[in-house]
Amino acid sequence: MTASTKTTKGNFFEDFFLEQDLVHPTPRTVTEGDVALYTALYGTRFALHSSSDFAMDLGYEDMPVDDLLVFHLVFGKSVPDLSLNAVANLGYAECVFGVPVYAGDTLRASSTVIGLKENSNRKAGVVWVRTTGVNQDDDMVVDFVRWVMVRKRETEDDGADAPPPVIPTLAKTVSAADLIVPDCLDVEDYDTELSGQDDLWEDYAVGERIDHAMGMTLEEAEHQLATRLYQNTAKVHFNQMTQSRGPLGRRLVYGGHVISLARALSFNGLANAFRVAAINAGRHVNATAGGDTIHAWTEVLDKMEIPDRTDVGALRLRTVAVKNQSCEDFPDKDVDGKPLDTVVLDLDYTVLMPRR
Amino acid sequence: MTASTKTTKGNFFEDFFLEQDLVHPTPRTVTEGDVALYTALYGTRFALHSSSDFAMDLGYEDMPVDDLLVFHLVFGKSVPDLSLNAVANLGYAECVFGVPVYAGDTLRASSTVIGLKENSNRKAGVVWVRTTGVNQDDDMVVDFVRWVMVRKRETEDDGADAPPPVIPTLAKTVSAADLIVPDCLDVEDYDTELSGQDDLWEDYAVGERIDHAMGMTLEEAEHQLATRLYQNTAKVHFNQMTQSRGPLGRRLVYGGHVISLARALSFNGLANAFRVAAINAGRHVNATAGGDTIHAWTEVLDKMEIPDRTDVGALRLRTVAVKNQSCEDFPDKDVDGKPLDTVVLDLDYTVLMPRR
Amino acid sequence: MTASTKTTKGNFFEDFFLEQDLVHPTPRTVTEGDVALYTALYGTRFALHSSSDFAMDLGYEDMPVDDLLVFHLVFGKSVPDLSLNAVANLGYAECVFGVPVYAGDTLRASSTVIGLKENSNRKAGVVWVRTTGVNQDDDMVVDFVRWVMVRKRETEDDGADAPPPVIPTLAKTVSAADLIVPDCLDVEDYDTELSGQDDLWEDYAVGERIDHAMGMTLEEAEHQLATRLYQNTAKVHFNQMTQSRGPLGRRLVYGGHVISLARALSFNGLANAFRVAAINAGRHVNATAGGDTIHAWTEVLDKMEIPDRTDVGALRLRTVAVKNQSCEDFPDKDVDGKPLDTVVLDLDYTVLMPRR
Repeated sequence: MTASTKTTKGNFFEDFFLEQDLVHPTPRTVTEGDVALYTALYGTRFALHSSSDFAMDLGYEDMPVDDLLVFHLVFGKSVPDLSLNAVANLGYAECVFGVPVYAGDTLRASSTVIGLKENSNRKAGVVWVRTTGVNQDDDMVVDFVRWVMVRKRETEDDGADAPPPVIPTLAKTVSAADLIVPDCLDVEDYDTELSGQDDLWEDYAVGERIDHAMGMTLEEAEHQLATRLYQNTAKVHFNQMTQSRGPLGRRLVYGGHVISLARALSFNGLANAFRVAAINAGRHVNATAGGDTIHAWTEVLDKMEIPDRTDVGALRLRTVAVKNQSCEDFPDKDVDGKPLDTVVLDLDYTVLMPRR
Repeated sequence: MTASTKTTKGNFFEDFFLEQDLVHPTPRTVTEGDVALYTALYGTRFALHSSSDFAMDLGYEDMPVDDLLVFHLVFGKSVPDLSLNAVANLGYAECVFGVPVYAGDTLRASSTVIGLKENSNRKAGVVWVRTTGVNQDDDMVVDFVRWVMVRKRETEDDGADAPPPVIPTLAKTVSAADLIVPDCLDVEDYDTELSGQDDLWEDYAVGERIDHAMGMTLEEAEHQLATRLYQNTAKVHFNQMTQSRGPLGRRLVYGGHVISLARALSFNGLANAFRVAAINAGRHVNATAGGDTIHAWTEVLDKMEIPDRTDVGALRLRTVAVKNQSCEDFPDKDVDGKPLDTVVLDLDYTVLMPRR
Repeated sequence: MTASTKTTKGNFFEDFFLEQDLVHPTPRTVTEGDVALYTALYGTRFALHSSSDFAMDLGYEDMPVDDLLVFHLVFGKSVPDLSLNAVANLGYAECVFGVPVYAGDTLRASSTVIGLKENSNRKAGVVWVRTTGVNQDDDMVVDFVRWVMVRKRETEDDGADAPPPVIPTLAKTVSAADLIVPDCLDVEDYDTELSGQDDLWEDYAVGERIDHAMGMTLEEAEHQLATRLYQNTAKVHFNQMTQSRGPLGRRLVYGGHVISLARALSFNGLANAFRVAAINAGRHVNATAGGDTIHAWTEVLDKMEIPDRTDVGALRLRTVAVKNQSCEDFPDKDVDGKPLDTVVLDLDYTVLMPRR
């Protein structure tokens, strides 16, 4: 009997080096099947992603795939190489969505290491990567930076020097000039009766807070189906046997599942936010597990004009998702400014919306 | 901080008026993904909806989408406008299915208020609506009346007069002349070996009762996936946090989920009932929740010839679904004629079947 | 009231006779929706089935449907006729996969009885059948033998003679000459960066054992969705009410669900095993239920050249799936050679892999 060494254990902190390029395996053709599952998983109701007719009336060639589905598929590809041994997903930045993705498109993903910093305890380190997803024509569909704390191998410290710490400088927000408005977009015939809400870009005020009112209880089968659909292999989402021995005792819900759920809930109040154009920053503040009920609320952080476009504008939003608590009081932080234990997501992102 | 008023709370009884027209948001392109999910959710085996070859042999251009999937999609669109504040779904009538729906078609829905009656306690009222679903060519795909009891706002009674009660006159059953047989249909090559049963229209007798024998246990993840696929937003199906405080203590399974499950179970004994042509009446007699096991039985209520067609006939059926009880004894009513506590669905509908 | 006899109770042992042909109902058009669900159910990552571009680079006209999805669809069709009254699924042999299946193809299935042997207690008997699945052009997509122990009717023994026992002679393995390599296949441009692993056929050694390292916890909703997607009607998978009275007390997970899960887990170590070409033998050693966590390991049993092909070779593999136990020690048998209680699947099958 020969025990094989062909099993991938994933990369450890020592395996990463600056400017390292990683081509992620398993290209993925997106289909109408993925779109139907996405609808079934989150109940999303944005008309652009639900109706080919509505999409074509806005100049698209067909209904584009939900931006966050694109994000999850590209993110999922990066997991086996980047975060199989992650202790924690620490953050996102500079996430920009590119050309629309349609059913039939094939997505590939690659990443470049742009920062490294070993922990002072020398047991793990933080890795910053820029991950890029492209379609079959090599057009960018999504591009983002994320940073994760990755374990070192469980070996005796060999005394080797840690790599010199390199911490990349990241934009606090994606500027309006860097947002990508699809070339095809023409909102002249935008139909608010079909989209579900009258309010357009002009109607939102900075500081306005929206309770999305609905709540959704997470089921184990649902988040597992979602996370496998994205071919995301992070063990913490799937293996109750090993999770039962860990601190949470439960399978951890993929953070992106909560992002998509919060976005779907946000339809109630933001029905005309037809495109997620950027994610400026994001934190999975507390863990979520099957059985938790998720509610969400949103604050308008900023309103931005888009260069050369008078028909659409951008709203910078902060959506907070909480577990097992409703949002009419906009739950957020305690008196010391610390996030409440019920807060599971704090997402700073930018959407496009038609103007009057 | 500004608390937004952009969140929809849904319409209350006072918001409805006679002849009011409601265009429901979020048009929906039906895809093969929806069809696959529908199969996975119910295990339906009717050959017409399972095989494009079988469908084309009957004159269809492709396999049409299951009639009940069309119903759920159109019903789902109406929920945010009609029944978000519903106390109870009271009934259906005059439901007729129209032109076949194929993957790629885009469905829209609208409703007209045809009746109103405030409760004597002045806290709620019954609203009757006719809801119509159409495809991208404005051809009717399904048309039905339903009535729901809707809460009034939780405000002091302003003393305003209740609207004069208007109760629409509804047909007890859809007549054979009003059933829509697809123009394309040609059953000359109908293959009972592939459909799964030899019995055709002539073989069924009025009064005959069929135990469908199989049972299916409902899971929370399943009914949530189904109900979100239909973009149905009724809170009682999704929010365990708030439901745990209510009388049932559980998420309520969408009644249409049980209808589809009963129809799928009815294949065993009604395999050649290839099309649901009408729903005459329906009642969700008792609530159902995750973990319940559903069985069903059917009684043949009537046999009808279709005007100008000698190749297909109609059967008016009554399908009863029960929870946590098998159906070899056709469970129905107690000695006082009251439905048993185990009965969850009592559906009166009409199917088409080939004749000899 | 007339109690109908139209409900199928399935065939009992007495209903089978040698050389009997059974055409299984409900032809099935495979769609991209099925493929998306398959990905969501198992998280499979083999590039050939995930990317149309990758598939077309290998000469396929599009991404072919996963071989095991084809198996499950054809197997599912056979259940209502063959195994509704099965006491046990005893084994598989001589399973060969034929022409690639693409979304849009319509599959049909039929079976021939090739062996019969009544049990000595005269209460049941073993039935051997050869089941063949074909596409719309009557090209074989999968062909296999399985044998099941089927109950006799619960009637008094009528003293009729048992049929003379006929036990078919079955090949222990599918020979390399009988494996079907798709005509279109051209691996010259096979990209191991995208497939996810460098190791090719030459790199595997007979006797090598691979721990696939990942584990997946089964959920009731998941295996029910899968089994219904395959239109498999075996009651033990769906009916908790009746199962709660049986020896297991639980719904039994369809054995094929575990096969697909084990195959998906095997990607980690066998990423270039792009096609399951044959199943030589298989046993569902112990039952599995919702909540069990499945891990898997594989032993290379044999390496075979394919006649007339120098570009691809075959590996005969034995994959063992276990519940609630990890596989770094390759759990298998106890000191007496009896399979461990944790072993749920012991599958002997043959895959194709590119050569250098």
